[in-house]
Amino acid sequence: MLTQEFTTNLDQTIDQKGIFKQLQKDLALLQQSAMDAKLPVVVLFEGWSSAGKGQMIEAVISRLEPRGYQVQSYTPPDSGEARHSDLWRFWRDIPKYGNMAVLDRSWHNDLLTGDSVGQKQIDAVNTFERQLRDDGYLVLKFFLHIGQKEQRNRLDTLSDKKLTAWRVNVNDWAQNRNYNQSLSAFNKMLEKTNTPWAPWHVIWNEDKYAGPIQVLQTIKAAMEGALTKGLPHGDWTPQTQFPTLEMPKLASITEFPVLDEATYRAELKKERKKIGELHSKLYRRQIPVIIGFEGWDAAGKGGAIRRLSWALDPRGFRVVPVAAPSKDELAHHYLWRFWLNQPKNGHVTIFDRTWYGRTMVELIEGFTDPVRCHMAYQEMNEFEADMVRWGAVVMKFWIHIDQETQLERFTLRQNTPEKQYKITDEDWRNREKWPQYEAAVDEMIAKTATPHAPWHIIEGNDKNYARLKVLKIVRKTLEDALED
Amino acid sequence: MLTQEFTTNLDQTIDQKGIFKQLQKDLALLQQSAMDAKLPVVVLFEGWSSAGKGQMIEAVISRLEPRGYQVQSYTPPDSGEARHSDLWRFWRDIPKYGNMAVLDRSWHNDLLTGDSVGQKQIDAVNTFERQLRDDGYLVLKFFLHIGQKEQRNRLDTLSDKKLTAWRVNVNDWAQNRNYNQSLSAFNKMLEKTNTPWAPWHVIWNEDKYAGPIQVLQTIKAAMEGALTKGLPHGDWTPQTQFPTLEMPKLASITEFPVLDEATYRAELKKERKKIGELHSKLYRRQIPVIIGFEGWDAAGKGGAIRRLSWALDPRGFRVVPVAAPSKDELAHHYLWRFWLNQPKNGHVTIFDRTWYGRTMVELIEGFTDPVRCHMAYQEMNEFEADMVRWGAVVMKFWIHIDQETQLERFTLRQNTPEKQYKITDEDWRNREKWPQYEAAVDEMIAKTATPHAPWHIIEGNDKNYARLKVLKIVRKTLEDALED
Repeated sequence: MLTQEFTTNLDQTIDQKGIFKQLQKDLALLQQSAMDAKLPVVVLFEGWSSAGKGQMIEAVISRLEPRGYQVQSYTPPDSGEARHSDLWRFWRDIPKYGNMAVLDRSWHNDLLTGDSVGQKQIDAVNTFERQLRDDGYLVLKFFLHIGQKEQRNRLDTLSDKKLTAWRVNVNDWAQNRNYNQSLSAFNKMLEKTNTPWAPWHVIWNEDKYAGPIQVLQTIKAAMEGALTKGLPHGDWTPQTQFPTLEMPKLASITEFPVLDEATYRAELKKERKKIGELHSKLYRRQIPVIIGFEGWDAAGKGGAIRRLSWALDPRGFRVVPVAAPSKDELAHHYLWRFWLNQPKNGHVTIFDRTWYGRTMVELIEGFTDPVRCHMAYQEMNEFEADMVRWGAVVMKFWIHIDQETQLERFTLRQNTPEKQYKITDEDWRNREKWPQYEAAVDEMIAKTATPHAPWHIIEGNDKNYARLKVLKIVRKTLEDALED
Repeated sequence: MLTQEFTTNLDQTIDQKGIFKQLQKDLALLQQSAMDAKLPVVVLFEGWSSAGKGQMIEAVISRLEPRGYQVQSYTPPDSGEARHSDLWRFWRDIPKYGNMAVLDRSWHNDLLTGDSVGQKQIDAVNTFERQLRDDGYLVLKFFLHIGQKEQRNRLDTLSDKKLTAWRVNVNDWAQNRNYNQSLSAFNKMLEKTNTPWAPWHVIWNEDKYAGPIQVLQTIKAAMEGALTKGLPHGDWTPQTQFPTLEMPKLASITEFPVLDEATYRAELKKERKKIGELHSKLYRRQIPVIIGFEGWDAAGKGGAIRRLSWALDPRGFRVVPVAAPSKDELAHHYLWRFWLNQPKNGHVTIFDRTWYGRTMVELIEGFTDPVRCHMAYQEMNEFEADMVRWGAVVMKFWIHIDQETQLERFTLRQNTPEKQYKITDEDWRNREKWPQYEAAVDEMIAKTATPHAPWHIIEGNDKNYARLKVLKIVRKTLEDALED
């Protein structure tokens, strides 16, 4: 709880400058260890205007190795950023493992706009930080606090000098005039976002060294702790539990309808036209759409995606093929690359394979700690819920075929020269693990088929039937979204 | 030369639809070959409003494998993009090797604004395309042409339907009313950007199949040619030849001044203060600054960069450490990653090693074809000139030490536990190639020390002297820039 009264408990007789300089050196050494240990660190500063964020950031970074940190300064989103959800630019800028991001303002600033901030936005912010923390990110949040009188003096001093006067604007003076009102808004924000995984550190920053020493000591202690004892994860309750839809097990799907060519062509044409019109309406209403495709190898994801894409204006959609993560992607939270590929509002992104690789190939091949893989169900529900909070329509398809059909298609690919590139040894290896994959898919669908981002299982033995069913579901989902 | 009269030379009696569909299939096969051969292709469409760019793009992509192409649609830059130079967003979006970018409008659209377009901007556009072509990019430019009457009919049809009326705006009607004026502007643009490396293809696009067939045939022929015969490069004259400054050979530098600690500290403080003030002014005037550091291993680049960074507001600069390119960076034109790291206007980017790796390590270690390496001198002068055209201040430092000093520093690093991470086997190997590197650096400095982006050689045996000299040159250069 912030108040105007504050005393620092720092002994004024000691060599503060010396302590400060030593802490900077300690931090530089810790940075090396963090780089070696691949510990990612987020240090963010919020606070009053003229509370000294700039100097504080300088104090933190000045001894650090430049290739190991990045300073990010956040002003209101530019018009490109504003076409994304509010947390998009912060996800975009998360540091890679072993690096430090030092933030001048952050997502918390968006929570200060008063009554328009709903519980969902607060939950989203806390969820974001929890997801980072659960992935091993150390998140350190500092609020730089000064009194009304001190702030007035600082604004006066800045305004007096030609070189700095431009830094002071009317909002700064308004904050100072309405100090108590701002104090209450800050307090509300701090209280709502003070979590066990990312607590706030309020720093009284009126003295030259007391504040910086406290900040540096806090960072040092936290980094030392993380480096020696590690960061535990997953031992807290998520912000939201999501209801799930009743879904069939894959084994229960034994009927695979077939569609004759003539009906297929006629219906396809009709659906394409309708979806084309809906796409145009979605664009006008600036509604973003996210469509994920998963399915067995050779299930026909590509063909279904192509039929769907023919219905869309090529300037308004993108197909994102998801393969094994690149080195850079591996050096970030696994959801990072999916955040980066979020559509702009009014656009459609089709994912050819998705973030659910985490709960299938990563789990079964042992690429990722199973504990982390199992945490993904909740994380994905949260990820998709945040897209929906922003206004997106989210839907997911599992294209299902039986084992005999897969064998036929593999054999056909093997024997057709222009299709051979589509079949690899890995496909055959995956096929041998059908039972493990089936169990993983059943669990995944059961735990992540939510009303806000449902799974649709498509019977895929007959390609015509499957493609048309996908188009019908897309059309219906978009119609419903436009009626809201 | 565009005119209103046009006839297509396509025989109306043949099966146009069949030809069209076959061409789409041919293109899909060629795409596979291009992916295998790592041939990057840029297909861009300019043209009249309602000339059918959207359908044409659909015709090009509909049979293609989604992971092999990207459609980019360009409207005026958003406010984030507008903080960069005009070509930045186009560089950002170049396809990687083996991929195709299909562009709905492009950099040529910026050349239609009439009298404000200077020769430098036209040269920059042609240079951009030449640089892509020289790197193996196939650049195919299409202008979709329709007559005044046809355009009016199309705009009418769109306006009549509720679903499409919003696509037509006042500019479209203005273009139709002032058809002849627009025709002349288009003609001027086409003429000025019609180059041997990226010629225009004007497509009369009033018929359903004639235009698409021509486009598909052109792409097919060009890709087949590139895949079978390859793309020759470098046999054309660059747009601009740059004057160079008289520079000393490294061997001639034998005097290494020394600065005592007291003078150094006093002067450093003075320079830091001045640079801090200049940084603030640059920010207010939104002038971007690019500072590149090169030098021998252990020359003291890091220390100099750190001293410089202490003078700058951490929210307004970024240090970009340049190491070996990542897989993704290797899959693009080598200048791509440096374009991506262009500062926003008003910001400073300090490169710790630079694009000049091309003319040193890549050349000497044989990572890159020497022919391409030698083309880099001109390409770098052009790259830097384009930053200056945008308004940036560009300067480059070579921190120079002699061989004995390097040996001393290597040995010290080897023997000091906390500095050991700074010395690797590669450093020792590079040291053995000192004569080759010296010759390469001499040539690089001689050919790329331009008045618009000068090299500064810093005598670096004494670190104090070197650091201060860097700061003095930065200060002086920024002062001069602010006086312009």
